[in-house]
Amino acid sequence: MAEKITPRATDYSQWYIDVVINAKLADYAPVKGCMVIRPRGYALWERIQQGLDGLFKETGHVNAYFPLLIPESFIKKEAEHVEGFSPELAVVTQAGGEILEEPLVIRPTSETIIWAMYKKWIQSYRDLPLLINQWCNIIRWEKRTRLFLRTTEFLWQEGHTAHATAAEAEEETLRMVGVYKTFAEQYMAVPVLHGVKTDSEKFAGAVRTYCIEAMMQDRKALQAGTSHNLGQNFARAFDVTFQTREKTLDHVWATSWGASTRLIGALIMAHSDDKGLVLPPRLAPIEVVIVPIFKNDTKEAVLAFARKLRDSLAAAFRVTLDEDDQNTPGWKFSEYELQGIPVRVEIGPRDMEKAQFVAVRRDTGEKAFVPVAEAGEKLRALLNTIQESLYQRALKFRQDNTFRVADYGEFKTKLDDPGGFIEAGWCGDPACEAKVKEETKATIRLLPMQKIETAGAPCIVCGKTAQVIAVFGRAY
Amino acid sequence: MAEKITPRATDYSQWYIDVVINAKLADYAPVKGCMVIRPRGYALWERIQQGLDGLFKETGHVNAYFPLLIPESFIKKEAEHVEGFSPELAVVTQAGGEILEEPLVIRPTSETIIWAMYKKWIQSYRDLPLLINQWCNIIRWEKRTRLFLRTTEFLWQEGHTAHATAAEAEEETLRMVGVYKTFAEQYMAVPVLHGVKTDSEKFAGAVRTYCIEAMMQDRKALQAGTSHNLGQNFARAFDVTFQTREKTLDHVWATSWGASTRLIGALIMAHSDDKGLVLPPRLAPIEVVIVPIFKNDTKEAVLAFARKLRDSLAAAFRVTLDEDDQNTPGWKFSEYELQGIPVRVEIGPRDMEKAQFVAVRRDTGEKAFVPVAEAGEKLRALLNTIQESLYQRALKFRQDNTFRVADYGEFKTKLDDPGGFIEAGWCGDPACEAKVKEETKATIRLLPMQKIETAGAPCIVCGKTAQVIAVFGRAY
Repeated sequence: MAEKITPRATDYSQWYIDVVINAKLADYAPVKGCMVIRPRGYALWERIQQGLDGLFKETGHVNAYFPLLIPESFIKKEAEHVEGFSPELAVVTQAGGEILEEPLVIRPTSETIIWAMYKKWIQSYRDLPLLINQWCNIIRWEKRTRLFLRTTEFLWQEGHTAHATAAEAEEETLRMVGVYKTFAEQYMAVPVLHGVKTDSEKFAGAVRTYCIEAMMQDRKALQAGTSHNLGQNFARAFDVTFQTREKTLDHVWATSWGASTRLIGALIMAHSDDKGLVLPPRLAPIEVVIVPIFKNDTKEAVLAFARKLRDSLAAAFRVTLDEDDQNTPGWKFSEYELQGIPVRVEIGPRDMEKAQFVAVRRDTGEKAFVPVAEAGEKLRALLNTIQESLYQRALKFRQDNTFRVADYGEFKTKLDDPGGFIEAGWCGDPACEAKVKEETKATIRLLPMQKIETAGAPCIVCGKTAQVIAVFGRAY
Repeated sequence: MAEKITPRATDYSQWYIDVVINAKLADYAPVKGCMVIRPRGYALWERIQQGLDGLFKETGHVNAYFPLLIPESFIKKEAEHVEGFSPELAVVTQAGGEILEEPLVIRPTSETIIWAMYKKWIQSYRDLPLLINQWCNIIRWEKRTRLFLRTTEFLWQEGHTAHATAAEAEEETLRMVGVYKTFAEQYMAVPVLHGVKTDSEKFAGAVRTYCIEAMMQDRKALQAGTSHNLGQNFARAFDVTFQTREKTLDHVWATSWGASTRLIGALIMAHSDDKGLVLPPRLAPIEVVIVPIFKNDTKEAVLAFARKLRDSLAAAFRVTLDEDDQNTPGWKFSEYELQGIPVRVEIGPRDMEKAQFVAVRRDTGEKAFVPVAEAGEKLRALLNTIQESLYQRALKFRQDNTFRVADYGEFKTKLDDPGGFIEAGWCGDPACEAKVKEETKATIRLLPMQKIETAGAPCIVCGKTAQVIAVFGRAY
């Protein structure tokens, strides 16, 4: 129940955990760093999957499934890749009662096993582009975990594409970071910056990593999706060549891109409040909950009225009717607020007489009387308003907490109070980037896709002329 | 291409592998016993998932996700369970660069980890029934593997339900074997027997296992789904009790039920032929493929006509148009036969003039002219006819290859030639069952749900009066 939720102002981290646990989205598993995604959390993941999968298919991708277990030697074939992932691997050394000759690692990502297969499947430019996505589970042995945001096992999708030219691979990489941005903004109602990672922050094995970054309500950044241009790195490591249109032989160009159950964490942190979850209607497993209000003598009539309303809405809405007569309406209101259902419909005997109901917005608490005759139209409009309003509120919050600073002193001040995204000049030297991270725990989240004019600004660390304006922030 | 497929009559096993590989449903992975499910195979799995998931939700189930890794001690808590699964476990002994204190096994099925969580979630009869399903990957270290039918890693769904009474658990177990039967017959067009397993064939940890069994074209049996009544076995092992309505404390009653990517193997083996796949329309990722037939001078006109047809069908059919001009129509016909697309539409210049096309059934090769004005209606009827006809053909095949025998001699004769399902008397003694298995490799596939009259028949092994008529067969 809602009263168990620590207010955000008191302890933001605890508030987040309280919301996840109390809304029954997830629970701690009896395996270190693992979680159980409970039915309400999984229903949200199903909506996310459905949305993303639709966008992937619209852009020409197909799904496939590759093995969970990867021979250890495969992981070692790409030098940066092995260095990046080695510390996080879970290793199967015994199976079927015997010690394995070669240990098998549980996929921390699937580039290596997929490129081993692509070698079999790609011979000619006619086999390209190959545009495959996979929905699966992943294990990375994380030291510090947090429900949804960072767990030892998580669910995700990983796209792995193969192309005939560097230009096509870059085009695909950009297309997919664009798909993530579209999804975050139009489905999750979470505004995101998109841009490129610096070399020190890019994926282990990539030439270039693009990402989307969102601001949470505690003003910290959360990376919500990444898209990597892998160049020919994996094709070289796995010797994947193809005959070009000109009959020459070349290594294949690659991309990979992924988003995970972390998106659920982003969703919660972006919109929810001290009463519990606030879900954007487009992703809410239930858009409308109907709570009939009755006493013994009015029960049957109100229920019949409510059922009729439910039935009339069922084709166009994800709607549910609470017929329980054990809990009070007040208890139910709190419960559905905790669950984040975008619109609550209240119907009492007097509403029934007037052929109307009360629609209550979860995000603002605003109430409105709606004539039953206009139910479908009015509720759809209300849900659209909520979706848009969540986005606008989050956008304004990000804008209000994004600061352009001129020097390192101002940088540190703003970073500590109020915090947020800091736009600052950077000379391009990894040493300056490292110094900021070391001293402030802030990292360059991205170099924005829409470049910000440097206007002669200096690097905030070394004072040399900045090459770019980078966006810094403390991150999850 | 089709010419690479070994005929069924020559070598049924090789035919199966040739179909899977050539139709690009799956490929061998570089990890022992594992496969890669290629896009065409995965599209079929997505259709299967969608169908089954719909049936699960209609019967009140919700999805969730539990961890891949299970502490070794959990697996050992239920005596029969550990005995059944120990030989097949893959074990993680190292993670994050360290040796684990307790090894973690990769789930071979999830009863143990799920019941460890149910202990946290179930306190009262109000928390029951708990009706949860999970879609996930499973690892069982199999010695002999075969694409889709038996692989070290496979995808499946596993339902795990908790109930307040033994009667409710039994009702659920029966409901779910019924759901599998419905799915097999109405979606896969595969007729199945349903019934109960003997004690020696039941799930490790179950009180009673129900199953569906289908007959493949080589007359062997294939178990396509199982539903287990687990009694209070797992509740006792994990100490899951609840307060009853009468304020007493009782252990919870459980069921579990599962079906896997093996269904794809069943689908192939039930319907396909020497030209390749034959898919039931309801599960075919593409129902209709349009192949325009043109020369240089007619290309644009025929393509425009075909596109118009495609566009007019797109809302109601999963339809695709092959616009390629490199391969011949003959090549394309073979290719789409190999892929098992239920209906091929051919359109040439003369068809165009007559505002008609040719519709060709994949299952029978039958051709019919269809006026474009009636395209939607006629194609839908044709697809329905194919779905029904595949089912009827498979049903007749099973009926023609099911034999009631009076003695062990006849049993062995029929089993060897032609093979099939053998209905025979059984006294109920596991020793007689074991003797048949030892001597003939046939097992009791099930004791039919609709009991067959024994009519005083003897047990075919020991000659004592039979308690039941059992269905025997050699199985995959």
